[in-house]
Amino acid sequence: MSRTPPFLDEPTDTRGAIMRATYQALCAHGYADLTIQDIADEFEKSKSLLYHHYDGKDDLLLDFLSFMLERFEEQLPFPTDGGADEYLERVIERVLATPLPSEHRDFSRAMVELRAQAAHDPEYREHFTRSDAFFRKQLTHVVRAGVEEGVFRDVDPQATAAMLQAVVTGVRTQRVTTNEDTADAVRAEAERYLQACVLAEEE
Amino acid sequence: MSRTPPFLDEPTDTRGAIMRATYQALCAHGYADLTIQDIADEFEKSKSLLYHHYDGKDDLLLDFLSFMLERFEEQLPFPTDGGADEYLERVIERVLATPLPSEHRDFSRAMVELRAQAAHDPEYREHFTRSDAFFRKQLTHVVRAGVEEGVFRDVDPQATAAMLQAVVTGVRTQRVTTNEDTADAVRAEAERYLQACVLAEEE
Repeated sequence: MSRTPPFLDEPTDTRGAIMRATYQALCAHGYADLTIQDIADEFEKSKSLLYHHYDGKDDLLLDFLSFMLERFEEQLPFPTDGGADEYLERVIERVLATPLPSEHRDFSRAMVELRAQAAHDPEYREHFTRSDAFFRKQLTHVVRAGVEEGVFRDVDPQATAAMLQAVVTGVRTQRVTTNEDTADAVRAEAERYLQACVLAEEE
Repeated sequence: MSRTPPFLDEPTDTRGAIMRATYQALCAHGYADLTIQDIADEFEKSKSLLYHHYDGKDDLLLDFLSFMLERFEEQLPFPTDGGADEYLERVIERVLATPLPSEHRDFSRAMVELRAQAAHDPEYREHFTRSDAFFRKQLTHVVRAGVEEGVFRDVDPQATAAMLQAVVTGVRTQRVTTNEDTADAVRAEAERYLQACVLAEEE
């Protein structure tokens, strides 16, 4: 059973309850086999309630993706008072932790499937454009702050952020689509990269 | 219209002709909407011939993925006589070229969709495990050769290969699932990484 993120724990309105049920149904069934009925089965409301709010599965899932991104936009911690170096190392450590915690694995699989819809569906592509841009902007801010604080070298924040994002997307995709997990090796090399290319040289 | 890779240009047997038709149908329709009829439409054979050889769409696509990987295994050039540094820089340059050549875009989209099947289908997962392992082994060989030739630092070839593979998978996934392309920024940063972490220091 996948653990829902805290902001889904105790929904206070209908949309929140639908979002929670969608999270659980996605984790249990994945995207391809998911039906509106599977989502209705996850809470005490009927399928017709879902059809009252949404045109179908993809309409609901696109709203779910927006909802999740909005929660991240509101809640992602941001280092405003120094510590950009520790923040970045913590991100790497958390995102590339092994083994992939089982409560994240099912959701991570579903996200890889949802992202793949963007290959041919402009609405999904629009979502992942917005989502990637948000996380890249967040990383860019952190790198820029680190440069200003003097804990990072004088790097190009956008290029550094783009590189880190590519590594994270790559590992996240590979680890749920293969039976091997290279996250340990990538984390070791990413730390070497941070030392040699990003963190300020020790005085 | 997508250009087929050279080894698909003039198939000499039925399997080759089916593989060529599959490539073209995948590029034209993507995975989700693809039907056996779409594949039959791409060549002069009937749908029943395809059903004679394959149990259905996924059976055919899994054979297609094996076929493509075998061609890569046979044909991927490998630097045996030095030049690991140039080889690696050429790989980065080619894989992260912008804009994504249109003749690769459609196939790249289809590959992202096929990989996403691996999130829930063990047969697809087995293929991508084998495929990722092959390309990582190839990169590991190149890095090891560069260390032995003295053109690279004394790095861990497996960690370096895993890092490069994650970057490539990340960019390939992001560029066909969003409307932005960060490949230029990633390439600039990947070259900085190669200079600082992988290539031997200038004497």
